[in-house]
Amino acid sequence: MIKYNPVELILAKRNGKELNEDQIRYLLTGFLTGEIPDYQMSALLMAIYFRGLKQEEIFALTKTYIESGKTISFPPELKVADKHSTGGVGDKISLMLAPIAASLGLTIPMISGRGLGHTGGTLDKLESIPGFRTQFSIEEFRHLVLEHNCALVGQSNDLVPADQKIYALRDVTATVESPGLITASILSKKIAEGAKHLIIDLKIGSGAFIPDKENAQELAELLISTGERFGLKVKVAFTNMNSPLGLAVGNGLEMIEAIEYLKGNPLKDTKILTSELTAKLLLSTNLAESEEQAIAMIEETVKNGNALNKFEEIIMAQGGNPLVIDDYSLLSKTKYKLPILAPISGYISHINCRSIGYALIRINAGRMKVTDSIDHNTGALLIPKIGDFLEKGEPMGEVHCNDKTKGEEVVELIQKAYTFHSQSVPEEPIIFDIV
Amino acid sequence: MIKYNPVELILAKRNGKELNEDQIRYLLTGFLTGEIPDYQMSALLMAIYFRGLKQEEIFALTKTYIESGKTISFPPELKVADKHSTGGVGDKISLMLAPIAASLGLTIPMISGRGLGHTGGTLDKLESIPGFRTQFSIEEFRHLVLEHNCALVGQSNDLVPADQKIYALRDVTATVESPGLITASILSKKIAEGAKHLIIDLKIGSGAFIPDKENAQELAELLISTGERFGLKVKVAFTNMNSPLGLAVGNGLEMIEAIEYLKGNPLKDTKILTSELTAKLLLSTNLAESEEQAIAMIEETVKNGNALNKFEEIIMAQGGNPLVIDDYSLLSKTKYKLPILAPISGYISHINCRSIGYALIRINAGRMKVTDSIDHNTGALLIPKIGDFLEKGEPMGEVHCNDKTKGEEVVELIQKAYTFHSQSVPEEPIIFDIV
Repeated sequence: MIKYNPVELILAKRNGKELNEDQIRYLLTGFLTGEIPDYQMSALLMAIYFRGLKQEEIFALTKTYIESGKTISFPPELKVADKHSTGGVGDKISLMLAPIAASLGLTIPMISGRGLGHTGGTLDKLESIPGFRTQFSIEEFRHLVLEHNCALVGQSNDLVPADQKIYALRDVTATVESPGLITASILSKKIAEGAKHLIIDLKIGSGAFIPDKENAQELAELLISTGERFGLKVKVAFTNMNSPLGLAVGNGLEMIEAIEYLKGNPLKDTKILTSELTAKLLLSTNLAESEEQAIAMIEETVKNGNALNKFEEIIMAQGGNPLVIDDYSLLSKTKYKLPILAPISGYISHINCRSIGYALIRINAGRMKVTDSIDHNTGALLIPKIGDFLEKGEPMGEVHCNDKTKGEEVVELIQKAYTFHSQSVPEEPIIFDIV
Repeated sequence: MIKYNPVELILAKRNGKELNEDQIRYLLTGFLTGEIPDYQMSALLMAIYFRGLKQEEIFALTKTYIESGKTISFPPELKVADKHSTGGVGDKISLMLAPIAASLGLTIPMISGRGLGHTGGTLDKLESIPGFRTQFSIEEFRHLVLEHNCALVGQSNDLVPADQKIYALRDVTATVESPGLITASILSKKIAEGAKHLIIDLKIGSGAFIPDKENAQELAELLISTGERFGLKVKVAFTNMNSPLGLAVGNGLEMIEAIEYLKGNPLKDTKILTSELTAKLLLSTNLAESEEQAIAMIEETVKNGNALNKFEEIIMAQGGNPLVIDDYSLLSKTKYKLPILAPISGYISHINCRSIGYALIRINAGRMKVTDSIDHNTGALLIPKIGDFLEKGEPMGEVHCNDKTKGEEVVELIQKAYTFHSQSVPEEPIIFDIV
């Protein structure tokens, strides 16, 4: 491998120059071996934040990420698909989408992450099921997927280790929000796990990392064009994260909501989102010929119980207690359920989802640092969406907690997260666009 | 002290927000104690490179730098002054300025640095004198200054340790070129050493770090306004670094040139620069009432031998062998003196001083890394300046070296550093402006 001077490469990027594949490989390989110290990498990441990455650089970065670890491949006849969300509040869509898609014949090798800051993580939600394992070797993971059409696991250390190490550094150096870095990070994992079709739920709004449509558009284009070069068909949905999704926020509570969905009791917003995202995978893999057919297939597999059975199968395969499907007390049990009442009358004009997510960390429904532990039982049920009218004193939901004082603080913080308006406010769409 | 989340502070700076004094102190103190890791500091430094620092931030940074270590103070009746150069090729002005100024009654507590990359360093030049010590405790340094009006030393670990640690990090993360960081770094050392008057030689051109006047102007304004807030009177000279300064480049050779100057044999460019910079200090401290008087005083102290005597006194006080003043073989002795001949005829239109500096590293006249050792004997004498006419084959200077092959490479690289033009080229001024 060619040797470079890391300072000169940082300087080049700082001055807006493009790095070539050799240089990117040198930097990442050196970082993984420890030859390039983290303080040089973090300076480079900040320079990338400001200067951005060109198409070729993102391609090279994604490639190097993938080549840094093991990869999984599935028999070509399988329709291997996955979904990724950029993160939100109450976002439990994967918990429904994965069993629904698997029950319809798609192969879903889903590698998820943990919650951090205001956003939840699929892994934490899954671990609200007693006994449910999320850590498997790559070989075990592949075996599970082949056996059950689906496995829901955490990232193994062998898979794209370069991305894992870089991501950990980005997280503590304020260099997460870079479209090029985000693209390489999302896609490398999906390509390495063997997915050929991917739907990305790109959340926009008060509970999302991406504040506006313009930034989202740039990221979507990078995701689609970069994916294409690796033979990964990518669809991107721009979705609304201005209201918490569904009813529940908190791990066990969200799992209950997901099971209710699979039992045929979906909520309006999660139903639209789950159906549309799953439909795009059915169309991308040619399992459905039209949107209408796809939606009908999805409704049928929920109605006839196949999706729920598939979820039960996955739970058992991964060591979880299948009794959770009927006994919700296994998923969430708290000393207190504190009501949240509307402090004034009015139309909900804005919901600060981020501050709701952060408030719930006080009762350990989420975490501030990756090393913090979580209480899977706690969380909140939140009824109102933007546009809803509430009378003063009307129930807005409830906080499930074991510490009453902290729970009351959370109730208050949640009340403050809602803005009430005297005039009527239009309801917002769940999905803005899919490209 | 208030506790902050370092990631949020990096984020704030990344997003263009201003940090307050508390936050800056928290970051630097945490960095010094190791609580804030270097990878967070380097990300912050890169964010600062892109976003800049506001006046108040530079003030707070300078203040925190100073407070991170010990400071020196001198009796108020002393006129304590210093000079700083941003670095160039052949820049030995301090070697003349310090003894001249001290012989005229100024107090000069001069703390200098080492050469790195294409630029030389005053410490290395001083250490070409056998026995000359540059490392002293703060107490010894102060004592030397009080005794001899001047001491020429390296930075003690007790003086502005925060700047030392930050500078080392900037050097390896491509975050040196930030006006705010440069201002705090230069001024904190001078304020901590007790200087009240400062002349800064801000070099511009092919051998300088600052490529153009516009960047220099911004830096000069920051230096003057920040210095003022600490009671340090700062003058900034914008000077020409498009031709190597004087005749010699290389440590012992530059020392010989400096001694020749003090013996009354100055070269044209170094004479202008030394006189003008020293004159500004005489005026700032009211030791002279007019420019003319100052220049006359400087010429007289060289002519009557006081400046040379002062230099001899300093050499002896710091353990150096005073015989160097008459026996130049103690300063530079090499096996080979290879002539550099003009490869073609023409007027010198451009000199790549940076590449001359880098070429001389091959014969160890300079260093690439701070840990590299130096050969004080080697270097080059370089006659032509921009505007000079040379006939093909006419001597341009000579390379002094101990390795003939490497020396010949250096000769060739130096020849290539000069651009010859068929039409006459105007001579350039040595000093562009002093503010």
